[in-house]
Amino acid sequence: MKTLSTLCAICALGTALSAETIATGDLGLVIERATGSVLLVDQSERAALDRITGLGDLSHASLVYSSDERYAYVFGRDGGLTKVDIVDRKIAKRVVQAGNSIGGAISDDGTLVAVSNYEPGGVRIFDADTLDLVADIPTDSKTIGLVDAPGGRFVFTMWDTGETWIADMSSGQAEITKIANMGDRPYDALITGNGRTYITGLFGEDGLTALDLWADKPEPIRVLPNYGRGQEEMPVYKMPHLEGWAHTGGEFVLPAVGHHEVLWIDSDTLQETGRTKTYGQPVFAMARPDGRHVWVNFAHPKNDTIQVIDTVTKQVVHEFKPGPAVLHMEFTPRGHEVWLSVRDAGKVAVYDTQSFEKLREIEAESPSGIFFTARAHRTGL
Amino acid sequence: MKTLSTLCAICALGTALSAETIATGDLGLVIERATGSVLLVDQSERAALDRITGLGDLSHASLVYSSDERYAYVFGRDGGLTKVDIVDRKIAKRVVQAGNSIGGAISDDGTLVAVSNYEPGGVRIFDADTLDLVADIPTDSKTIGLVDAPGGRFVFTMWDTGETWIADMSSGQAEITKIANMGDRPYDALITGNGRTYITGLFGEDGLTALDLWADKPEPIRVLPNYGRGQEEMPVYKMPHLEGWAHTGGEFVLPAVGHHEVLWIDSDTLQETGRTKTYGQPVFAMARPDGRHVWVNFAHPKNDTIQVIDTVTKQVVHEFKPGPAVLHMEFTPRGHEVWLSVRDAGKVAVYDTQSFEKLREIEAESPSGIFFTARAHRTGL
Repeated sequence: MKTLSTLCAICALGTALSAETIATGDLGLVIERATGSVLLVDQSERAALDRITGLGDLSHASLVYSSDERYAYVFGRDGGLTKVDIVDRKIAKRVVQAGNSIGGAISDDGTLVAVSNYEPGGVRIFDADTLDLVADIPTDSKTIGLVDAPGGRFVFTMWDTGETWIADMSSGQAEITKIANMGDRPYDALITGNGRTYITGLFGEDGLTALDLWADKPEPIRVLPNYGRGQEEMPVYKMPHLEGWAHTGGEFVLPAVGHHEVLWIDSDTLQETGRTKTYGQPVFAMARPDGRHVWVNFAHPKNDTIQVIDTVTKQVVHEFKPGPAVLHMEFTPRGHEVWLSVRDAGKVAVYDTQSFEKLREIEAESPSGIFFTARAHRTGL
Repeated sequence: MKTLSTLCAICALGTALSAETIATGDLGLVIERATGSVLLVDQSERAALDRITGLGDLSHASLVYSSDERYAYVFGRDGGLTKVDIVDRKIAKRVVQAGNSIGGAISDDGTLVAVSNYEPGGVRIFDADTLDLVADIPTDSKTIGLVDAPGGRFVFTMWDTGETWIADMSSGQAEITKIANMGDRPYDALITGNGRTYITGLFGEDGLTALDLWADKPEPIRVLPNYGRGQEEMPVYKMPHLEGWAHTGGEFVLPAVGHHEVLWIDSDTLQETGRTKTYGQPVFAMARPDGRHVWVNFAHPKNDTIQVIDTVTKQVVHEFKPGPAVLHMEFTPRGHEVWLSVRDAGKVAVYDTQSFEKLREIEAESPSGIFFTARAHRTGL
């Protein structure tokens, strides 16, 4: 059957790529912001597998994964929502759903993808399979801090009006609960890993505002009234990323705003429990998955450096310079390695989190966000 | 090219199965204990995809997943270690590594699989790729409570001598730390999700023993001296499964031993914080991933019933009877659904965890343990 086997070989070519990525548990995507592309990477191989292009403006882009870890939904700054197939390594679908978007989330059952927008303000919710519009929720405000919550809910906050809305999609259409008085110009928010506590950072005043989503009627809870910009005025783009807040189990670690330190707060009482001086203005403070160490990167011009803080002693235990413009960090799901985007060196560097030894460098075009597929199984990521 | 396309169709048959399971993030395996088989299931489709047979004695079997979520390592009671390929839906490799094994674990970097044995006692560590023996650690004792811990470590405990050993494999060979005086006949153990606290249950005396694996020299810590069998003698097989302990964030929920209640303990102080009366002797108390609810099943003859407990009020909020012999529960990774093994009804039942509505029944041969692939990304599972 030489003829048949030859023909089979020809037929096989069409599926060769997908055959290489037949299991998706240890894959990831790296945002290449300058080129509007994403780099498909393999954690176990510490290697780049392929590049997918044509995603538009990816400055400040983020993404979420489908529950089967086959598709990534990439939220571009230009309002583009791109569904990337990491098995066939191509764009499965793309819609430009608004003029200017700021992030998104996927529902706990994986059926709905939500995007929050600056222009026009509001949230749009799409069918995760077809990207058809399912719900359009205008808010008359720039909308920030969009996260998923258990029970088919999305939570998001209004920059202009200081309201947080909870959209319950479990009935098939949006049932909205509005919470007022979250504070002056909320600029970002996070939800804890268990989906219980939603916390907004404020640009217009000091302090933060928390919501207990387990309460029958969630009420704003003021947190850290002394946390803020203080006397130093800063543009929004220098405010730290709240998604970067580390949760070490008993405590949160927050990048201070405009100061060279991180703040520790008790995750039950939301009271401050300590501060640690750092090398520069922290941007991300990310907990290793076991919570023993927190890795911190810094704002320009000190963004060539990483500090590692021990969460028991609250002391810096390691400091090193991966290279120019360390923009993002992503830990392997069980924390044995960490991947760093070193934008201006055009590379992603992989480190052992126990020995701090560099294991590999991977070429990338102006890499920023790194997203491993294990995020598919987490709330709020 | 009708001929070619026809031939291609023929060629395609050979790869059709794997093509259906090209992404592995929402798959799982159900142990079919009576037939020595595992049922491959799809969470999103709420369906069985295929059955893989020839795994030997699967009574009390458990399994772990490779980091890429392609392979499952199944630990059989007969000492068999079977590597199952869930993409090609077949046994990739099988070794009978001992006479009688009791469970296993996979290292945080995914390169090593460890098995703990009754006969002969001890732990054997295998290359996750080839299943070649990498390290043989005799212990002169039945060995129980084997778990993985961050830093390439395995932790396990000796029934006969009451010692816990930590095997650090990060150097490539086993460096053993021994902790004595863990108590009289430890019968099972768990490790917390962050890999910090290891807790053993004791058969020979009341109470539990904890270790802080973050300590430079971990020392045994006695917990709940009033927790145990009390006056009522019970055979080992009725002792509750410690892996079933729920961790709701601030508290653990423990099935009481021989009593109709669950115990709550503070996860920091390890002091008892409350008790909740239950319908029967609890076997598993499993927290929904968001920690708001704990689902409890019970020992024979009350094993037809499930109770759901609210972790804020510590009150039972729901009770129902899925059917005869509810052996195990597995939540979808973000907690919107739960799958239950109803052994004597020959089915797995899928429920909505918010509405408690039954969504689907799936035929299975005497199903017991259910394991979703998201476990690949968790410590101690």
